[in-house]
Amino acid sequence: MSVTPILLILAGGASSRMWPLREKSLLRFGAQPLLADQIRRYRELGFGEIIVVGNPENQADIAALAGQMPGPAVQVVVQPEPKGMGDAVLCAAPLVANPDAPLYITQVHDVVDDSLHRGILEAFRADPTASYLAGCEMEDYFPGGYMVVDADGRISGIVEKPGPANRPSNLVSIVAHVHSRAGRLFDALRAEYARDVPTDDHYERAMDALMKTQIYRVFRYQGSWRALKFPWHVLDIMEVFLAQIKGQTVAESAYIAKTAALVGDVFIGEGVKVFPGAAVVGPAYVGAGTIVGNNALVRHSMVLEHCEVGFTTEIARSYVAERCAMHACRVLDSVFAPGVNFSAGCTTANLRIDRGPVFSRVKGQKLNSGRDKLGAIIGRGAFLGVDVMTMPGVKIGEGAQIGPGTHVHHDVRDRQRVYVKQELVVVEGDA
Amino acid sequence: MSVTPILLILAGGASSRMWPLREKSLLRFGAQPLLADQIRRYRELGFGEIIVVGNPENQADIAALAGQMPGPAVQVVVQPEPKGMGDAVLCAAPLVANPDAPLYITQVHDVVDDSLHRGILEAFRADPTASYLAGCEMEDYFPGGYMVVDADGRISGIVEKPGPANRPSNLVSIVAHVHSRAGRLFDALRAEYARDVPTDDHYERAMDALMKTQIYRVFRYQGSWRALKFPWHVLDIMEVFLAQIKGQTVAESAYIAKTAALVGDVFIGEGVKVFPGAAVVGPAYVGAGTIVGNNALVRHSMVLEHCEVGFTTEIARSYVAERCAMHACRVLDSVFAPGVNFSAGCTTANLRIDRGPVFSRVKGQKLNSGRDKLGAIIGRGAFLGVDVMTMPGVKIGEGAQIGPGTHVHHDVRDRQRVYVKQELVVVEGDA
Amino acid sequence: MSVTPILLILAGGASSRMWPLREKSLLRFGAQPLLADQIRRYRELGFGEIIVVGNPENQADIAALAGQMPGPAVQVVVQPEPKGMGDAVLCAAPLVANPDAPLYITQVHDVVDDSLHRGILEAFRADPTASYLAGCEMEDYFPGGYMVVDADGRISGIVEKPGPANRPSNLVSIVAHVHSRAGRLFDALRAEYARDVPTDDHYERAMDALMKTQIYRVFRYQGSWRALKFPWHVLDIMEVFLAQIKGQTVAESAYIAKTAALVGDVFIGEGVKVFPGAAVVGPAYVGAGTIVGNNALVRHSMVLEHCEVGFTTEIARSYVAERCAMHACRVLDSVFAPGVNFSAGCTTANLRIDRGPVFSRVKGQKLNSGRDKLGAIIGRGAFLGVDVMTMPGVKIGEGAQIGPGTHVHHDVRDRQRVYVKQELVVVEGDA
Repeated sequence: MSVTPILLILAGGASSRMWPLREKSLLRFGAQPLLADQIRRYRELGFGEIIVVGNPENQADIAALAGQMPGPAVQVVVQPEPKGMGDAVLCAAPLVANPDAPLYITQVHDVVDDSLHRGILEAFRADPTASYLAGCEMEDYFPGGYMVVDADGRISGIVEKPGPANRPSNLVSIVAHVHSRAGRLFDALRAEYARDVPTDDHYERAMDALMKTQIYRVFRYQGSWRALKFPWHVLDIMEVFLAQIKGQTVAESAYIAKTAALVGDVFIGEGVKVFPGAAVVGPAYVGAGTIVGNNALVRHSMVLEHCEVGFTTEIARSYVAERCAMHACRVLDSVFAPGVNFSAGCTTANLRIDRGPVFSRVKGQKLNSGRDKLGAIIGRGAFLGVDVMTMPGVKIGEGAQIGPGTHVHHDVRDRQRVYVKQELVVVEGDA
Repeated sequence: MSVTPILLILAGGASSRMWPLREKSLLRFGAQPLLADQIRRYRELGFGEIIVVGNPENQADIAALAGQMPGPAVQVVVQPEPKGMGDAVLCAAPLVANPDAPLYITQVHDVVDDSLHRGILEAFRADPTASYLAGCEMEDYFPGGYMVVDADGRISGIVEKPGPANRPSNLVSIVAHVHSRAGRLFDALRAEYARDVPTDDHYERAMDALMKTQIYRVFRYQGSWRALKFPWHVLDIMEVFLAQIKGQTVAESAYIAKTAALVGDVFIGEGVKVFPGAAVVGPAYVGAGTIVGNNALVRHSMVLEHCEVGFTTEIARSYVAERCAMHACRVLDSVFAPGVNFSAGCTTANLRIDRGPVFSRVKGQKLNSGRDKLGAIIGRGAFLGVDVMTMPGVKIGEGAQIGPGTHVHHDVRDRQRVYVKQELVVVEGDA
Repeated sequence: MSVTPILLILAGGASSRMWPLREKSLLRFGAQPLLADQIRRYRELGFGEIIVVGNPENQADIAALAGQMPGPAVQVVVQPEPKGMGDAVLCAAPLVANPDAPLYITQVHDVVDDSLHRGILEAFRADPTASYLAGCEMEDYFPGGYMVVDADGRISGIVEKPGPANRPSNLVSIVAHVHSRAGRLFDALRAEYARDVPTDDHYERAMDALMKTQIYRVFRYQGSWRALKFPWHVLDIMEVFLAQIKGQTVAESAYIAKTAALVGDVFIGEGVKVFPGAAVVGPAYVGAGTIVGNNALVRHSMVLEHCEVGFTTEIARSYVAERCAMHACRVLDSVFAPGVNFSAGCTTANLRIDRGPVFSRVKGQKLNSGRDKLGAIIGRGAFLGVDVMTMPGVKIGEGAQIGPGTHVHHDVRDRQRVYVKQELVVVEGDA
C-alpha cells in the first residue's frame, strides 16, 4: 500500500529581510496567498495531513486561510520564538501521533515545479525504508548547501557554502525532505537541542547524525527553484505564476475596448476595464476590478485587484498589489505593496548608467540583487507625488510620502516624508 | 393677459476675485460667452425687454455682444463705479419707462436650471400683485442669506450668514427676484441711498423695507445652482454646459482617425482633427480647429477653438480656452485661459498628499476651494517650459514664464518669470 | 561624341564643426552612407571615372565603402594635411592621365538636386570648349561667394561675402565646377602654391587667374541646396532623403499591429515591429530591426537600424542613428548619433520661451542655427538618465553620462558626467 507522508510546511520564518514588504507566506500571486496556493498544489499531489508552522505574527492570518481551504483540515501550530528550523519542526511534533509515520518537510517560500514533489514521493514509495532529500542540480555556483553523495545516491553529508572550487557535487540542497520516520527526526532534533552548541543549525546537525545510521538518498531535481528571501524575489516568484497562464482568459464581466489589445497569455479578472488604446501583453495577470486606462500598457506583469492603471501608464515586468493608483507613469521591474499611489510623471529607473548589476541594502548590508534591471520596492500605502524618480534598487517604506520631483537615491523608512527644496529665481515682468 | 417682466441682468461686478482669469460674463463655455448664452436662454423663456448692467471695463465687449444677439435689441447700461447692487439696479431705472411694469433681476454669473425662471414666472403670472424671490432649498449649510418665511410662503426678511445652528429656514436666497412694480423698488432704493448708512447693502435694506408693506413670496427651487465667484468655479459652470451635450455631434469637416475613439456624449467642432489612438471621452466639448494629437485623451473637459492637444496629452475634468498649446502633458482639474503654452512633461498636480481639500489664495486670503481635486488656474498667454509641475490650487498670472523643471508651489504674478537653479556636479571623463 | 568629365568628390574636409557628430561623408541617411549615396547618384547620371579625396582619418572607411560600390572602381586618394581645397584637387592629379580631360569637382557634403548635375553636364556637352560653374539663384542674402557675370553668362570673378548691399548678382557659387581641361586647372593651382601668399584660397585664386584667359560660364540653378556644415544641418539633409520616400514601403518581414497606424509616405525596413497603438507618420524612415513600441509615435523623422522606440516615445522631425534606445520620452527636432540611451521622461526642449531662433556654440562661438525649433545633438553612446531635459540647441558629447532629472543648459563634453544635487528635507513619521 502506498503511504503518503505527513506534510509539514514551515511558514514561521521572519520576513524582516523582505522589508518594506510584509509576511511572505501571505503575498498573493493571483487570487490566493502564496501559502494557499502551495497547499492547493500539495492537495492535488495527494497529500492528506498537512501541518503549517507559523509565528505569533502571522498565526491568525494563516489560521484564517487554513480554515478556508477545501478538503481535510489544515492544522496550524505556532513557533513562539524564532529559534531555528529544528525548533520549528519540533513545534509540530505534538500533532504527529504516529512516530513511524513519514514526514515531508518543505518551506512555504520555496517555489518549485510539481515534478519535484511528485518525483520525491515516487522515490519514497518505491523504497519507504529510506529517507530522501531533494538536490537541485546546478552548474553555476550558488551559496547553498552541497550534498556529499556516493555512486548509489546515498548522502553522507551536506557542506554549507563550500566555495565554487570545493563543491563535493553539483547538488544543492532544497528543503524538500522526506524523513521515513518522523519520530526518529524528532528524537535527533531533541538530542541536538539538549547539547550546548551555540550555533543555530540544529536541524542540519540532526540530519548529519541521522545520516550516519539511516539511509538518506538524493532525489535529483533539474527543474526551476525560486526562493522568496529578499523583496525583489517577488519578481522571480511572479514569473512562476505568470508561466501558468496559458492562452487568454477574460472574465465575462470584463470590458475590453475595441481598440485595446490583448496579446499573448493573459488573465483578465471580473469587472476589469481595458480602455481604448490600452494593451495587456502576456504573460500578464490583471485582477478583478482593475482599470487599465486609455493608452496604458501592462506587460509581463501582475496587477492585482482594484488598481487604477491610469492613462499612458506603463507597467512592465512588475508586481503591483491591490488598490494601487498609478497615472501617466512608468513602473518598471518593480514591486508595489497594496495601496501605493504613484503619481503622474513618476518613473522607477531600472538600469544603472554603467549598466552593471543593481544593488540594494537589506538590514544595513549592500547586496547584489543579481539583476541588471531592477526598479523600486514600495511599501503599503506609500504616496509618491508627481514626477518622482526612484533610482534602481531603492526601497520605500510603508506610508512614506515623497514630494514632487524628488530623486530618491536612498531607501526611505516607514512613514518618512521626503521633500525637495528648489532654489528659485523670480524676476518681475516690470523689471 | 400674461405679463412678462422686464429682465435686468447684472453683469457689472468686478472680476478681481477671478484672477488670473478676466471678465466672467465673457468667459465662453462653448461657442458663446456666458452672457450671450444666458440671454439666449431668457429669450427662449419668453423675455422681451432685456437690460444688461455692465461696468466701464466690460461695457464695450458687452455692447458688441448684445448687438449680435438675434431678436429685440438688448439694452446695455453702465454702472460707472462699483457702488453696490442697489446702485446697479438704479442705473437701469432711466430705461424703465413704466414704473408699474414688473422687473426680474438676475446676475449673469448665477447659472441655474431653466425650471427656476419658468417656475417663478408662472407664480408671478398666477398672482401678479405679489413679488417673488427664489429660495434654493439646501440641507447643508451654505454661507448665504436665509429667508424668514411664514406658512403661506410670505417672506418677512432675509438673514445673512446666520450660522448653521440659526437658520430660519432651509431656503437660501438666489438673485432671481420678480418685483411686481419696478417703480416701487427704485423708490425704495433711492430712499436707502439718501440715508447715511455706511454699509453696502442698500438693495437688501430696500427689500426689507418693501417686505413690510408689500407681499413678497418665496419660489422654492430644488435644482442646480452654480455661481461664478472664484476661478475654480469655471469648472462647476463647465459641468452645466457639458451636461447639455447629448449624444455625439461631429462636424462634417472634422477628421476622426480610424483608431481614434469617441466615447459617450461629445461635441466635435468644425475642422477638428482627432489623430490615431486618441480618445475623446464624454462629456466633452472640442472646439473648431482644435487638434487632438496621436494617443492624446480629452475626457470630461471643454477644449475651445484652435488648441493643440499634442501627443499623449491628457486633459481631464478641465477647461481649456482657445489657442492653448499642450504637448505630452497632463492637464487635470484645471482652468487655462486663452493662449497658454503647457510644454512636454508638465503636470498640474491635483491631489494633496494628505488627500485633503485644496486651498487657494484669493486677494491675499487662503480659501478652501471645496474640491478634493484641483489643479492649476493659468492666465492668458502664460508659457510653462518642459517638466513644470504646478501644485494643487496654484494660480499663474497672465504672460508669466515658468522655466523648465520648476515646481510651482505658490501663485505667480502676471508677467513674472520663475526659474529653477540646479546645483550640478560635473566630472571629466579623464578623471 | 559626348564626353563625360572625370568626377572628383572632395571628402577630405575636417568634421570638427560637426561635433559631437563625426565624419560627415559617412553619416547615413537610410541604408547607405552619404558618400555612397552620392556616388550611386553620380553613376546614374553617367559618370564613369570617379576619384574621392579623403583625409588620413576617413581614408580606410571611404576605401572600404568605395570597394563595395557596384560598377567601375572608385579611386580614393588621401590629402595628407588639411592644406585647402586647391591642395585636395592636386592630390588627385596623379590619377588624371590625360591633361586634356574635363574634370567635374564637387563636395560630398553639398546635397543638391540631380537637375544641377544633369544641367551642367548638358551645358558642357553643348560647348565643351568652355568651363562651367554652378550658380545658385538666391534672393535672400547668404554669406557665400557671389558671381560677377556678364549678359552672356560669362563669369569674370567671384566675390566672397560681399554683404547684402554689394552683391554683384543673385548667383551664389556652389562647388559644382566643370573645368574643360584638368591639366590647365592643375597648372594654375601649382602656380598659386608656388607663390608665397599667406591665405588659404589657392583654389579661388587659381580660378580667378584662369577666368582671365579661359571662358567660364555660369550654370544657373534654382533647385534645393543643403550643405552639411554644422550638426543641425543633418536635419536639412534628412529632409532631402525623406522627400524621396513615395508611398508606403513595408518590408515583408515587418510586423505592423492591427491597431498601429502607418500614415503618409513611410519606409519600414526588414524585421521592423510596430506595436499596438503606435503610429509612423510620413515622411518617415524606419530602419531594419527597429522596434516602435506600444503607443509610440515616429513622425517626419528618420530612425535607423536596431533602435528601440519604447512605449509612448515620440520622435518628431528628428534623426536617430542606429542602436539608440529610447523610452517614454520626447525626441524633438534633434539629432542622435548611434547608441544613445534616452531614458524615460527625457525631453529635448525645442522651443525657446521667447520663441526666438535657437543658438548653439560651435568651437567656442555662439551661432544662430536659423531654426525656431531645435532640440539637442547627442553624440555616440551618450547615456541620459530618467527625466533629463536638454535645452534648445544643446550638444552632448560622445559617451557622456547625464544623471536623472538634470536640466542641461550647456554643452557637455565627450565622456563628461553631469549630475544634479538635490537638497532634500526628510521628516520622520514619528515627529
